[in-house]
Amino acid sequence: MRLRKKTWSPEIFETHAQYCVPVESAPKNQWKKVLDCETLHVEIGSGKGDYWHQLAELHPDRGFVALERDYTACAIALKKVEKYANRRKRLIYGDAKALSELFGTGEVDVIHLNFSDPWPKTRHEKRRLTYEDKLKDYDAVLSDTGRLVLKTDNRDLFNYSLVSVAQTYFVLEEVDVDFRSQQQEDPFTEYERKFHDLGQPIYRAVWRKRHVK
Amino acid sequence: MRLRKKTWSPEIFETHAQYCVPVESAPKNQWKKVLDCETLHVEIGSGKGDYWHQLAELHPDRGFVALERDYTACAIALKKVEKYANRRKRLIYGDAKALSELFGTGEVDVIHLNFSDPWPKTRHEKRRLTYEDKLKDYDAVLSDTGRLVLKTDNRDLFNYSLVSVAQTYFVLEEVDVDFRSQQQEDPFTEYERKFHDLGQPIYRAVWRKRHVK
Repeated sequence: MRLRKKTWSPEIFETHAQYCVPVESAPKNQWKKVLDCETLHVEIGSGKGDYWHQLAELHPDRGFVALERDYTACAIALKKVEKYANRRKRLIYGDAKALSELFGTGEVDVIHLNFSDPWPKTRHEKRRLTYEDKLKDYDAVLSDTGRLVLKTDNRDLFNYSLVSVAQTYFVLEEVDVDFRSQQQEDPFTEYERKFHDLGQPIYRAVWRKRHVK
Repeated sequence: MRLRKKTWSPEIFETHAQYCVPVESAPKNQWKKVLDCETLHVEIGSGKGDYWHQLAELHPDRGFVALERDYTACAIALKKVEKYANRRKRLIYGDAKALSELFGTGEVDVIHLNFSDPWPKTRHEKRRLTYEDKLKDYDAVLSDTGRLVLKTDNRDLFNYSLVSVAQTYFVLEEVDVDFRSQQQEDPFTEYERKFHDLGQPIYRAVWRKRHVK
């Protein structure tokens, strides 16, 4: 996502410093203590933060960590913090190579991939968030009962992800090839709202670890 | 599928007897010899036979067995035989309880499920062609390198099937949540043509056995 720079971004980062964690200062293995929660959600690529904030409202006792590398998007997401009651949340601004740099083994309960970049060219396959190396990384930080949740409007990314994940230790638990054709409690992301309003189907899949029922 | 009776059906069955096999006379373990082929395809629920006939034309050396329990649909399918060059085909008219009654262990190379009845009610789950008991049956008759191929326009059946098959010895190899948005060599079924012309997406998945790459 490319956003026009906002002159107020530096100020927001300063006034909301308590919600913002640089990659190098992530409280690895201490997240649940820091956020005073038993269940930890992580969204990779949180954009302007609507999903992050709204999902947190649905689960007041849970902790929510958002990762986003666009500076302006982070500022926009941070600016909204005061509108919401659940403050068990942190935004990691920056470019983490792997979740395992930020989270301990089994520390995360749910990983959300929302409308990730499809990286359509074959030579960019490794950048897709459901490439096998990324899945290994998720497996490491997810608890035994953890879940990986993907939402996208991109047919190719969805097709790719279903096959890619099927080759691993994850097993498909839920899937919907037209997720928004029925009422769902799950919040919309900014992108999702736009694509849904255009009449495009939203695809969603949830995987669990294979060895755990 | 309910079709209006055709007065010419009994005559077609008589004149095309060489292409029609009653359930109780299936040449179990002898199919490839009977059809003089090395690769055997089976379509469960072949309807009026368009897919069966057209796929056979794409693979002149392969054998094709269609299963259909509607008498009139079988007559319509049989009536078309002469239009096509590949005669390595048989139609099984009747209600087989399991493929393993008709085919030997590992005798089948590809099983096709095209636009199967979705059986939407939960109490009818066992009748869906991707219910776990059916999948065990397919696993028994499929060769080690065999494939299970599903096409449908039904969102619920597709969602159900992806999850149901993921719990088994089959692993997803290909999937497309909008199969007809690009040119495909695969023939249309009669139903598929109708739904596709209405602008509905066609869903398709291909699974292989997990232990074989």
